[in-house]
Amino acid sequence: MSASLDSPPRAASPRALSAKSAAALLKEDMRRVDDRLLAALEGKRDLIPEVARHLIASGGKRLRPMVALASARLCGYQGDAHIDLAAAVEMMHSATLLHDDVVDEGALRRGRQAARLIWGNKASILVGDFLLGKAFDLMVGTQSLHALRILSAAACRIAEGEVMQLACQRRLETDEAACLEIAAAKTGALFAAAAQTGSALVKSARAHGARLETYGHQLGMAFQLSDDVLDYAGGSKKMGKALGNDLREGKMTLPVVLTYARGSEKERRFWQEIFANGLKKGFWDEARALMERHGALDETRDRAKRFSQKAVKALATLPQGAGRDSLEEIALFSAARLH
Amino acid sequence: MSASLDSPPRAASPRALSAKSAAALLKEDMRRVDDRLLAALEGKRDLIPEVARHLIASGGKRLRPMVALASARLCGYQGDAHIDLAAAVEMMHSATLLHDDVVDEGALRRGRQAARLIWGNKASILVGDFLLGKAFDLMVGTQSLHALRILSAAACRIAEGEVMQLACQRRLETDEAACLEIAAAKTGALFAAAAQTGSALVKSARAHGARLETYGHQLGMAFQLSDDVLDYAGGSKKMGKALGNDLREGKMTLPVVLTYARGSEKERRFWQEIFANGLKKGFWDEARALMERHGALDETRDRAKRFSQKAVKALATLPQGAGRDSLEEIALFSAARLH
Repeated sequence: MSASLDSPPRAASPRALSAKSAAALLKEDMRRVDDRLLAALEGKRDLIPEVARHLIASGGKRLRPMVALASARLCGYQGDAHIDLAAAVEMMHSATLLHDDVVDEGALRRGRQAARLIWGNKASILVGDFLLGKAFDLMVGTQSLHALRILSAAACRIAEGEVMQLACQRRLETDEAACLEIAAAKTGALFAAAAQTGSALVKSARAHGARLETYGHQLGMAFQLSDDVLDYAGGSKKMGKALGNDLREGKMTLPVVLTYARGSEKERRFWQEIFANGLKKGFWDEARALMERHGALDETRDRAKRFSQKAVKALATLPQGAGRDSLEEIALFSAARLH
Repeated sequence: MSASLDSPPRAASPRALSAKSAAALLKEDMRRVDDRLLAALEGKRDLIPEVARHLIASGGKRLRPMVALASARLCGYQGDAHIDLAAAVEMMHSATLLHDDVVDEGALRRGRQAARLIWGNKASILVGDFLLGKAFDLMVGTQSLHALRILSAAACRIAEGEVMQLACQRRLETDEAACLEIAAAKTGALFAAAAQTGSALVKSARAHGARLETYGHQLGMAFQLSDDVLDYAGGSKKMGKALGNDLREGKMTLPVVLTYARGSEKERRFWQEIFANGLKKGFWDEARALMERHGALDETRDRAKRFSQKAVKALATLPQGAGRDSLEEIALFSAARLH
């Protein structure tokens, strides 16, 4: 669990105490998830443990498995299957990261050199495939067809989102709707699936599924839009990955989409030049300045915040307690890391 | 279904007639599998249908789904779930091919230009991920946890085999055992899983599982060793992929492992030179000549044949009929394509 969640950003909130104890409760479950992740690699040969451990042991925020664990708690789940589902969710995410870094030619991940630069693109592709297979293996072990249905649909949606993103790469005509659809698929879908795992495991909590799905989707949007802002306005230390990657890659994230839509003809030619011929000296500062001028970063921040508020709101009618407190805390954190 | 299976290579066999009618029976099911594969891509956006159809519609031998369908028949399965499982098996295989071509830098696949050369490596990686997710989605739809368990374990094994192969690349010290283990994991596992799907669907046929698994494993080995021979001794037209890929890629398949193990010091230096500095003029003919001199291709052919015979033998105590006949036919075909 990250330090920022141990000391929640809303320390002055009236529920701060219970949220803290919720985080502590999740901590024990999170330790079990970590054990499960490492156990899944035991006895594996060759590059699999090295590559997977490099990524998994480097930590990351583990938000998705945390959401799964909190969901299980909210739904009053009593068994052990939530640990496997949370580990499976993190494995699916890790597989995506390995493949993403190959596709995006990323250099830095979770503050460490990307696996593909150490072991090569080939190993990253194949170990990603292994992790995806292993994720399903863990899910099958829980015998929950309901959870399997939700998570296999999410696996498709994630890949669809990634493909959509690739298809929109360097296409400045990409509009806001497409940009949000990509975020919903590539990021929202896994958060939404993780949030539903609790209700999948507990028959009497099945009715909470729709609200938990909404919560997860909104949280995922808040998280993705924050990420998109941080790629332009974060420090690489804070992010654990390099600044400016999205621009170099020609990714049509909301800050670019808004700035381009609001730009003059001359400004638009500047963006066309970047996307056609790459980042030259001075371009980064100019791009940043244009984003500020059109309020694109502030607006993306605001949207992230509103998504996180909607996520909290989606929880309103769900059972109170440590599970719901944790989910609230995660939602508030997802946008708070921007400030 | 391929023409070679319509006219089985053992036309003189006493069971040729029933095998033919078995192939005809499977043909209707295979048509449904094809429909299922294409339906799974419907409504998908951007590159997914284009890339997937390029690969899936180009046919291929469809041996794996055929094995799944024949297994369902042998086990007396009456429902429709075998169609989805067979389609899922082919999707898993297609995902592997897309990723393989990126990893191996393959140029030709199923007689057509490899997808990665048309749409790029990135699209191949992501569409492969989509197909893997979709495969699980189809399996989940059958509600057979038994089938899911078998197929998710196979997904892990395939990736493990691919990683092992990568780790052994250009390593001339790779021994026969490692080489056969790679074949068992990357190819045997999916055939073995496909062969068990029937017994997974029919509770009363559960006891056939172990024999069907053995059958599938042996068939997969026969198939992989045949493939390894064809990479040196087939025509690219016959194979649908380019000749000599394995050598260029430094893959330690059985023909190389045997030739190297049996070679003189001078011959071994020749192989070291190829694997260190690539194929130069005259090297291909010399490599082929060394394989002939040491009987490596003949021995690999023999082993493939023995594996296919063992596959047939594994069926001996299973219920007779169209299902078993089809499985026999596929096993004999897998090695017969060498002659």
